[in-house]
Amino acid sequence: MEVNILLGEFFGTMTLVLLGNGVVANALLTDSKANGSGWMVIASGWAFAVFAGVFVALAFGAPAHLNPAVTLGFAISSGDFSNMLPFFGVQFLGAFAGAILVFLHFGPHWKVTEDAGLKLAAFSTGPAIRKSGWNIVSEAIGTFVLVLGVAAIFSGDVAAGMGPFLVGGLVWGIGLSLGGTTGYAINPARDLGPRIAHFLLPIPGKGESDFAYSWVPVVGPLIGGAAAGLFIMILPVL
Amino acid sequence: MEVNILLGEFFGTMTLVLLGNGVVANALLTDSKANGSGWMVIASGWAFAVFAGVFVALAFGAPAHLNPAVTLGFAISSGDFSNMLPFFGVQFLGAFAGAILVFLHFGPHWKVTEDAGLKLAAFSTGPAIRKSGWNIVSEAIGTFVLVLGVAAIFSGDVAAGMGPFLVGGLVWGIGLSLGGTTGYAINPARDLGPRIAHFLLPIPGKGESDFAYSWVPVVGPLIGGAAAGLFIMILPVL
Amino acid sequence: MEVNILLGEFFGTMTLVLLGNGVVANALLTDSKANGSGWMVIASGWAFAVFAGVFVALAFGAPAHLNPAVTLGFAISSGDFSNMLPFFGVQFLGAFAGAILVFLHFGPHWKVTEDAGLKLAAFSTGPAIRKSGWNIVSEAIGTFVLVLGVAAIFSGDVAAGMGPFLVGGLVWGIGLSLGGTTGYAINPARDLGPRIAHFLLPIPGKGESDFAYSWVPVVGPLIGGAAAGLFIMILPVL
Amino acid sequence: MEVNILLGEFFGTMTLVLLGNGVVANALLTDSKANGSGWMVIASGWAFAVFAGVFVALAFGAPAHLNPAVTLGFAISSGDFSNMLPFFGVQFLGAFAGAILVFLHFGPHWKVTEDAGLKLAAFSTGPAIRKSGWNIVSEAIGTFVLVLGVAAIFSGDVAAGMGPFLVGGLVWGIGLSLGGTTGYAINPARDLGPRIAHFLLPIPGKGESDFAYSWVPVVGPLIGGAAAGLFIMILPVL
Repeated sequence: MEVNILLGEFFGTMTLVLLGNGVVANALLTDSKANGSGWMVIASGWAFAVFAGVFVALAFGAPAHLNPAVTLGFAISSGDFSNMLPFFGVQFLGAFAGAILVFLHFGPHWKVTEDAGLKLAAFSTGPAIRKSGWNIVSEAIGTFVLVLGVAAIFSGDVAAGMGPFLVGGLVWGIGLSLGGTTGYAINPARDLGPRIAHFLLPIPGKGESDFAYSWVPVVGPLIGGAAAGLFIMILPVL
Repeated sequence: MEVNILLGEFFGTMTLVLLGNGVVANALLTDSKANGSGWMVIASGWAFAVFAGVFVALAFGAPAHLNPAVTLGFAISSGDFSNMLPFFGVQFLGAFAGAILVFLHFGPHWKVTEDAGLKLAAFSTGPAIRKSGWNIVSEAIGTFVLVLGVAAIFSGDVAAGMGPFLVGGLVWGIGLSLGGTTGYAINPARDLGPRIAHFLLPIPGKGESDFAYSWVPVVGPLIGGAAAGLFIMILPVL
Repeated sequence: MEVNILLGEFFGTMTLVLLGNGVVANALLTDSKANGSGWMVIASGWAFAVFAGVFVALAFGAPAHLNPAVTLGFAISSGDFSNMLPFFGVQFLGAFAGAILVFLHFGPHWKVTEDAGLKLAAFSTGPAIRKSGWNIVSEAIGTFVLVLGVAAIFSGDVAAGMGPFLVGGLVWGIGLSLGGTTGYAINPARDLGPRIAHFLLPIPGKGESDFAYSWVPVVGPLIGGAAAGLFIMILPVL
Repeated sequence: MEVNILLGEFFGTMTLVLLGNGVVANALLTDSKANGSGWMVIASGWAFAVFAGVFVALAFGAPAHLNPAVTLGFAISSGDFSNMLPFFGVQFLGAFAGAILVFLHFGPHWKVTEDAGLKLAAFSTGPAIRKSGWNIVSEAIGTFVLVLGVAAIFSGDVAAGMGPFLVGGLVWGIGLSLGGTTGYAINPARDLGPRIAHFLLPIPGKGESDFAYSWVPVVGPLIGGAAAGLFIMILPVL
């Protein structure tokens, strides 16, 4: 595999998390001009985070999965698992790097934000109602729609340069419609990488990194991605 | 008819209702992170629900009506009614399946939501002011714009892969502008399938399924779709 | 001129006003599910109103001006005034017809809305601060951007079917950024047609139709459109 | 260099600032119909401001940088600095002219707005938390994403006419996700030109123009743009 492809997944995932976790920080941290701007801002911000991250990854010649659950789904549907582990690695590292940039970008806002839970939310997801079984179901359904949707979008031709917008639109929809239960990680790297960054970074007044929940946004998306991969394999019309 | 086309209408309508009814649940159910996020979120969520559902249906080679009123309108304008009844069937079943997925996705939120009316709203529409005649008019006008708009969009060439976004944009507009009177079912399957799911599913603390109103979002959209079909037939410039 | 072109401008402008004035009604009328949803909904609704209206007009083979100020601007820049008066006529009639559809769509909501000013707002614009000179300036600037922007968009190739979205995006921007002063009529037909409909229709509890202001959203947009037409003519790079 | 290219950068930047600063005025000035409409309106308004400004500039045959930081970044990545200083000049003048149009558009709203800080915000950015070092970091990160993203978008083919929308989408994302710290000038001309306009114009009840901060939204974006230019040069896959 060319190094450019791994660099593309790295910088694409970094951009995804910078803008994606950035919008959560922007909406939640004290004294941000976007404080309290709500779900429309958060879902829209994640949509354009995907859009920007996909463009960056594509510019390197990478497939722009940016997400181990997507990589797993397409590995299953294609039967080619050769890129899976290196992709997992750079996606995780890219998400970790993106979280560091979010930490830097919102430099003085961490100290003035009193609620440690809001600070963690700018790194990792947490469930609205903590019930692991249901939370796994939510993450799996959201990721199933993501992987099936991406496959459907690219099952036909797409006008030049519009693919990243269409994938962003899909994530816009998933966030608007399904995001309120678990915060739609739908991506193990996006959740675990920043969670470890939260644990390691010197964030003023931070609380726990909630590792007890950390397996849910890893396992749920992998189940959803794998199920979508099987679905696409069984119904090869896609 | 190929089975793939029926599967496409089924899975497309299922995706439509999962994301479409999902955004209502997301905005209305207690403890959802998107609770109270308002009309912009709801109208945008339905737009991307259509967008995603159309992509899924097209990937199977289906025409992606996802809606008996659209099927009826195009049957009238083309004079070909051969696919109408099987399409009605799979659209209804797809909407029913989508509602079950919404039920699962928001698993623990049903119990903590006290208002039974909000729970029903995550399945089926209800009128802001209950007057059957006016409600029929509202549903018919909204559906007329939908079917006429879809015909207009595809009366010329559309760049590869952009059709689902344009149809989603049309529904974005209908929801933003005309949705506040009856909740813009504008689709008999989208309303009746989930209403029956609401009746059958073991939703904690649910109320009535309001079958007294159920004919309005079936008949109104069919009138609007048929009127648009006649309009397109009479004015064949489209 | 073919009758289809006039029909296209008529039905396109009707669709524009149905969805455009519809979003104002949706956001302002009592008991609408979108009541109080704010400026993002209004500006987005007008964007998709333009989008849908342009698609409908294009399907008839019309140029989709939908707006006397646009027709005037392009008449000036092209030097061809032959279509101007018939276009003015059908644009006005289309806007009048669209306002009647808004009246029907929101049937029972007029009676329950107490504030007569809100009812008028669902038909015609009014200024935030009533100062005719400044209001003319606002309307002229907004329309200048509209006509210049449309000319710029179509100065190069546009991917098939994406033109209506791009014009809608332009109007999205004008509304978001410049709409708060006078309500951005930026279209004489869109304002005067519905104002006369307001005067004639049996709207329960309606107030004055504010004809004293009615010349501003006619003259201001015509000045802005004419200025843009001159600008395009003088700088023929466009 | 052709004069048309300089005219394009001038009128494009003027349009950018008219709509971009316009949305801030629209959302903040007293009695505007969009008053208090929040971050979604502001970020969306800036996105379509970029969209419209890029279309206007492209219509003149200009490259549509509209931003000295973009011009610097591409000068570094291409090694061609010949256009840099004239572009800086017309971008600054265009932003100054756009600010005058905002002043005119919102004519009577300046007097009724009591808070001088809100009036300045309609011209130039200010930090949420005033710490020059962190503010520079924020502006540099936002601009880095802008310049890298633009390069990534145009590293491959883009469907005809969709480039301005994609660049607007990128700025939509940057505003939603990263804008709350410093107000995302990410453009020295956009900030300094209007700040000088604020200083010179007879705005009723205006306060200081905050020149003490004025270097931050000049230097920060130039650092970010230069860093992105180096990044693109070093990693020539883009």
